Amino acid sequence: MTAETITAAYYRGNKSFSVEQIAVPTPGPGEVAVRIAYCGICGTDMHVYHGNMDARIGFERVIGHEMSGLVDSIGEGVTGFSEGQKVVVRPLDHCGDCPACDAGHQHICHKLKFLGLDTDGAMQEIWVVPAHTLHHLPADMPLDLAALVEPVAVACHDVRMSGLKPGEDAVVIGGGPIGVLVALVAREAGGNVIISEVNPNRLEIARKLGFETVNPLEQDLAATVNERTGSKGADVVYEVSGSQPGADAMTAVAATRARIVMVAIHATKPTVDMFQFFWRELQLIGVRVYEPEDYDRAIELVAAGAIDGDTVITDVSPLEDIQKAFESLDSSPTALKSLIKVGDLA
Amino acid sequence: MTAETITAAYYRGNKSFSVEQIAVPTPGPGEVAVRIAYCGICGTDMHVYHGNMDARIGFERVIGHEMSGLVDSIGEGVTGFSEGQKVVVRPLDHCGDCPACDAGHQHICHKLKFLGLDTDGAMQEIWVVPAHTLHHLPADMPLDLAALVEPVAVACHDVRMSGLKPGEDAVVIGGGPIGVLVALVAREAGGNVIISEVNPNRLEIARKLGFETVNPLEQDLAATVNERTGSKGADVVYEVSGSQPGADAMTAVAATRARIVMVAIHATKPTVDMFQFFWRELQLIGVRVYEPEDYDRAIELVAAGAIDGDTVITDVSPLEDIQKAFESLDSSPTALKSLIKVGDLA
Repeated sequence: MTAETITAAYYRGNKSFSVEQIAVPTPGPGEVAVRIAYCGICGTDMHVYHGNMDARIGFERVIGHEMSGLVDSIGEGVTGFSEGQKVVVRPLDHCGDCPACDAGHQHICHKLKFLGLDTDGAMQEIWVVPAHTLHHLPADMPLDLAALVEPVAVACHDVRMSGLKPGEDAVVIGGGPIGVLVALVAREAGGNVIISEVNPNRLEIARKLGFETVNPLEQDLAATVNERTGSKGADVVYEVSGSQPGADAMTAVAATRARIVMVAIHATKPTVDMFQFFWRELQLIGVRVYEPEDYDRAIELVAAGAIDGDTVITDVSPLEDIQKAFESLDSSPTALKSLIKVGDLA
Repeated sequence: MTAETITAAYYRGNKSFSVEQIAVPTPGPGEVAVRIAYCGICGTDMHVYHGNMDARIGFERVIGHEMSGLVDSIGEGVTGFSEGQKVVVRPLDHCGDCPACDAGHQHICHKLKFLGLDTDGAMQEIWVVPAHTLHHLPADMPLDLAALVEPVAVACHDVRMSGLKPGEDAVVIGGGPIGVLVALVAREAGGNVIISEVNPNRLEIARKLGFETVNPLEQDLAATVNERTGSKGADVVYEVSGSQPGADAMTAVAATRARIVMVAIHATKPTVDMFQFFWRELQLIGVRVYEPEDYDRAIELVAAGAIDGDTVITDVSPLEDIQKAFESLDSSPTALKSLIKVGDLA
């Protein structure tokens, strides 16, 4: 099956990747080698590209984690997998020995290793990972769609943590790739979803997916939400923008006892209207990545056709063109989710 | 029983009260007249005194709501009360017709009237209130201690909303009257409580009540909490300071998946380390006043002697001296809870 070398894309700093031939990696005990089909470019990967994570990542790193692939070879002691099976990786490796792990929250382990950032990732033809990170996929799931499982699992975690109930009103602040997936998963959970977004192209994608949208630069978001909800406000708010206007809007649109889910990574500390938390007994729920059950749910949703890949995936490039793909995604106003086709396994 | 006039203290603006004789008020249908024993001075009353609530309160207002008293007379259609019974008032009157009331959250009604702010209050010898606001007290409860039921109910609400479980580590940021009561109720719920406070007199009171204390101006609070908890951090944090350092500390001391309870009223919007909400999946829980069950619990705790009134109540003044009592509380570094003895009913 395997050639003597494989192709791998290394992040080399200064917004650059080098595509190289490396020796075929082999799985050690407890590991599985996965032949990669597709790997999506995550917002975090764009942060790496921009040099914001150089201290953590270094310049000898294969990044990428939003992947799909086939089991290629299996290390010693691993059971439950056979060659050729479709799989995705839940790219988290925990220490097993910190207060978070002790409490059963392995996904927020104090020493969490994120595969594809703290270790090499999926932008290479064969990726060796711990077997415990793998999830099986249905044999008939298209591998491009399967590369959406990881970001869909983020959305499943966010919606699960929000406790969204059927019939509740939800506002998603920020209609980028994660915002749109949160909206899709929230709608699947029975929520009445409005997406707030300022980018006209993203608004168009959101509307194409059937969502009511508001451009808060053109329309008063809180007034619109109040109008739609009989002055109640949104039961659940997902803040996915990571911006000060988003942090302002999250309290402005919230109903009494609303749950505000902090999906975004706010690199700078926003000011927050804490008075409203008191006045309306709001709750803020921080969320990070996913737990195994969120992957299970994401695989179910993708398998059920709940995620419109034709709309969400806006372009696909071969691994050789990874440099162009990042440059293009960085400057494109229309791109939502860009995939890298790492190997030709379809 | 009643004389032709009663004494009432009016807030007249500009940090001043006038003590006047007024006609004896009588209860209308659905109302009860309560002869007031004691009325505590709340932080909100100090806000009134400072003129911060003039627009809402006006200058014809009898304030006060942390009270205890005896049923004096009973309006038409009211059942379940008889003259001379000890009672406290839960000073909230809801509209019954807004989204919050519809959802069963009457205490955060969109049009909530707070008795003693939006209506006249307990700094008068007889206070007429809606019967639905009354809670019975045990006949043997001392009436000075009973005046603590309202602020203890605040603490009961805060601790209940936090879901504090026995053995969990809790940090109370701010050791004023409410902070100390939150700490007492959290300890009763089985929490291991540390109080963070900068005022040496309040630190002394907290230590007298048996709490471990930290002065964050002298000692690294987060380091101390980590040391006490095996690097875990606090499972529950009560932010009662209303300050920017308090808002900074609330995320710094929190364990993964910690619940941070926003007890304080932040008049200005603090900056908040939202990254930590994401990184450690923190939750922030806004809390306001109380629900009936919090009053029930507060009465139980006061009846059981769980609240050390001798330490918490630092002075008692007659109604005639209300002006001096506010001036003194405003300038005193040692006062915690000041009571006004409104009538001599002991």
